[in-house]
Amino acid sequence: MANRIDQVIGLIEKNREDFIEDLKEILRIPSVSADPARAGEVRRCAEWLADRLKRAGLEHATLHEIGGHPLVTADWLHAQGKPTVLIYGHYDVQPDDPVDLWETPPFEPTIRDGKIWARGATDDKGQLMMHVHALESYLAVHGSLPVNVKIMMEGEEEIATENLSAFVAANKDLLSADVIVVSDTGMFSKELPGITVGLRGLVYMQLDLTGPGHDLHSGSFGGGVENPANALAAIIASMKDEAGKVLIPGFYDDVVPLTDEERAEFARLPYDEERFLKETGAPKPFGEEGYTVLERMSARPTLDVNGIFGGFAGEGPKTVLPSKAGAKISMRLVPNQDPDRIARLFEEHVARVCPDTVRFEIRQFSGAYPFVTPLTDPSLQAAARALERAFGIKPVFIREGGSIPVVATLSENLGIPIVLMGFGLPSENAHAPNENFDLDNYHKGTLSSAYLMEELSLPGK
Amino acid sequence: MANRIDQVIGLIEKNREDFIEDLKEILRIPSVSADPARAGEVRRCAEWLADRLKRAGLEHATLHEIGGHPLVTADWLHAQGKPTVLIYGHYDVQPDDPVDLWETPPFEPTIRDGKIWARGATDDKGQLMMHVHALESYLAVHGSLPVNVKIMMEGEEEIATENLSAFVAANKDLLSADVIVVSDTGMFSKELPGITVGLRGLVYMQLDLTGPGHDLHSGSFGGGVENPANALAAIIASMKDEAGKVLIPGFYDDVVPLTDEERAEFARLPYDEERFLKETGAPKPFGEEGYTVLERMSARPTLDVNGIFGGFAGEGPKTVLPSKAGAKISMRLVPNQDPDRIARLFEEHVARVCPDTVRFEIRQFSGAYPFVTPLTDPSLQAAARALERAFGIKPVFIREGGSIPVVATLSENLGIPIVLMGFGLPSENAHAPNENFDLDNYHKGTLSSAYLMEELSLPGK
Repeated sequence: MANRIDQVIGLIEKNREDFIEDLKEILRIPSVSADPARAGEVRRCAEWLADRLKRAGLEHATLHEIGGHPLVTADWLHAQGKPTVLIYGHYDVQPDDPVDLWETPPFEPTIRDGKIWARGATDDKGQLMMHVHALESYLAVHGSLPVNVKIMMEGEEEIATENLSAFVAANKDLLSADVIVVSDTGMFSKELPGITVGLRGLVYMQLDLTGPGHDLHSGSFGGGVENPANALAAIIASMKDEAGKVLIPGFYDDVVPLTDEERAEFARLPYDEERFLKETGAPKPFGEEGYTVLERMSARPTLDVNGIFGGFAGEGPKTVLPSKAGAKISMRLVPNQDPDRIARLFEEHVARVCPDTVRFEIRQFSGAYPFVTPLTDPSLQAAARALERAFGIKPVFIREGGSIPVVATLSENLGIPIVLMGFGLPSENAHAPNENFDLDNYHKGTLSSAYLMEELSLPGK
Repeated sequence: MANRIDQVIGLIEKNREDFIEDLKEILRIPSVSADPARAGEVRRCAEWLADRLKRAGLEHATLHEIGGHPLVTADWLHAQGKPTVLIYGHYDVQPDDPVDLWETPPFEPTIRDGKIWARGATDDKGQLMMHVHALESYLAVHGSLPVNVKIMMEGEEEIATENLSAFVAANKDLLSADVIVVSDTGMFSKELPGITVGLRGLVYMQLDLTGPGHDLHSGSFGGGVENPANALAAIIASMKDEAGKVLIPGFYDDVVPLTDEERAEFARLPYDEERFLKETGAPKPFGEEGYTVLERMSARPTLDVNGIFGGFAGEGPKTVLPSKAGAKISMRLVPNQDPDRIARLFEEHVARVCPDTVRFEIRQFSGAYPFVTPLTDPSLQAAARALERAFGIKPVFIREGGSIPVVATLSENLGIPIVLMGFGLPSENAHAPNENFDLDNYHKGTLSSAYLMEELSLPGK
């Protein structure tokens, strides 16, 4: 058995550079799911991926029309009596703006400082290609896999539609498995691989205010007509105090307090403030009294303005009293906050504090439940062994602050364990200009995927 | 004498349509002073204007290089023993964005509903061309003017540079006069001409905040890194209460309270709330307790956000914790607030309330002193008679909420009375899309200019 995996590992080592060239191919496709003008590129990426899965030796590679961008599935189901692993990833990427802040163009992957730089490098094309390369190597060496494998790669992760939920609910047989593996999260640090056992949920709202019916001269009308940008600032300010505590009434009602054991685990994770400040560029840490920075970023709920706009944003002065102002505001949730209830509390709060001198409109873009996996789950333990074999160090179990709506969807619909085994780093600018992916981790992630298939095939699992 | 002016009036009536065609020519030139890409168009407008003044019969038409966009001057100084009138206007215009909100293109003047629609129609090309047509008509009929005239038309009014101040300070002889006439203000309403006896001052600031050094993923970092857009909202909210009272400490220290007489004058002005709401499109009036809407918009100081920006402003959701957020914030001042002192109080307030989890930068774009003219001034009385002859109704003396920095500059440097005789209407979208100018007022404004020259020439003035 050891021999069996060693040959696979050997092939992965041998093809290390080829795999990087292969990754570049998919990174060159600007599959920005949020941009309607790039819908064709998103589809092209799906087609590239389906073809690539076929070439890797997977079967039944298929594009499913689920309402928006296509979903790609494939499988290999000939490991009789062995468990079935459903591997999830997403091939769509975040928008690339502001493009002028990129040191090299977002869709021209470049190797620099041991990293590959491109939009989607770490989130999530790099991470999904690791599995493709691991499975391909396994099949190339042995003509078979140690477990049954189903692949599901979506094209709407970054825009959080309802389409995948509907597809999963309607295709439980197609997707039935014993464990789900998702590589769309991060390591704790470059030295320390991690398995994510918790994700925050998300509610993403847009608040638009209209004051006067059209832009007015701020000299002629200022003082007698409410300024929607001032009103917006006051509403946003009413939502969070200066220490980061959310002030929307009822917001914390369903938050399950951290247990002493959970806080002890957080305390075991290394945290280097100097490094944190260097990585973020922030003048100093921020956040709620009584919690550590790591707890604040992953185990506590938040409210953040993701965008704010209104009036004149060009160079120099323009004396306008704007007609409109708006903000995109998202809240990260922790167990057991319910995204629908939080969205309602947000709306009720705005309705309560918004002055009647402006009109407001609220839209909700997405909602995702928070998620946790029990530490005792055997799949988690198998993944921990795989990571230790690939990295030579015992991984930590961590909670991540981001949201992967599909995790809640899969958890609810399929009712099987989910292993979040990710290889991103906090410094890799997942949603910002100059996204990148560490090439050592890319390689070790591919090794981890191969080891994981092996570990999951072992009896007792 | 009556006959002398009657012939001029007759010629203005006869050329009414030609004057509109002539106005269209200058309106076609996109002289947006704030846009560096249109500097050439601003210059072309200055050249057009100098040529036009020459053709009207004015002398010494000259472009002065004052540092930014050129200043245009001309004169006619052959009315021996008569007073000298300095006419000020500006040929630059506000930016035309957002262009897609214009019903007809901003630089293709169109006649519709008895109005001419174009950027600059009322602010200020229409108003300056009235004087050109009045003087031209006078010279065409009589070969002379009843007073000496100096013309000064600037190209930087909308960007409030220091260049004109420096020029005026250095060219007091060239500009010396007995009275200054400025047509860059408004009538009280279409039925009611007015002479502006007060203008608010202005301080225009930009506040930029930087939190993290680059955009971060709001899931991974939210809660542990200050969000500069949230911090900005809190800072702005700290500057003004929900009733419009400015909360910057010391802001009202130098405000001269309105006297009972001034408040009685305000009370005499007609105010129709339904019409005000229709004109502005606001759901309801807004502002400080204890003051009427007209007082709030012209005799009370304000603080307005003119623009706010940060993070993702595109369609849909983007889960970014932005690195930067900023706002353009202007304050309108009343006697005796000092713009420099107010700017300093603003800076001190920001320094006091800005959290140390973000860095701030403040820039000041412009400052203008508030202005008032005593009602007893004989030039004001001459202007009142001229307006009554043109409109057939006694004008009111009003305070306007806007700022004309040059008025303070001229007042300080030349020390002579300033008559603000304007013909704009509040509904004419001076700084917004779909700017327009009422053609009846355009015509009556030209008549008013002719009558004013006559009235100012009379003994006793």
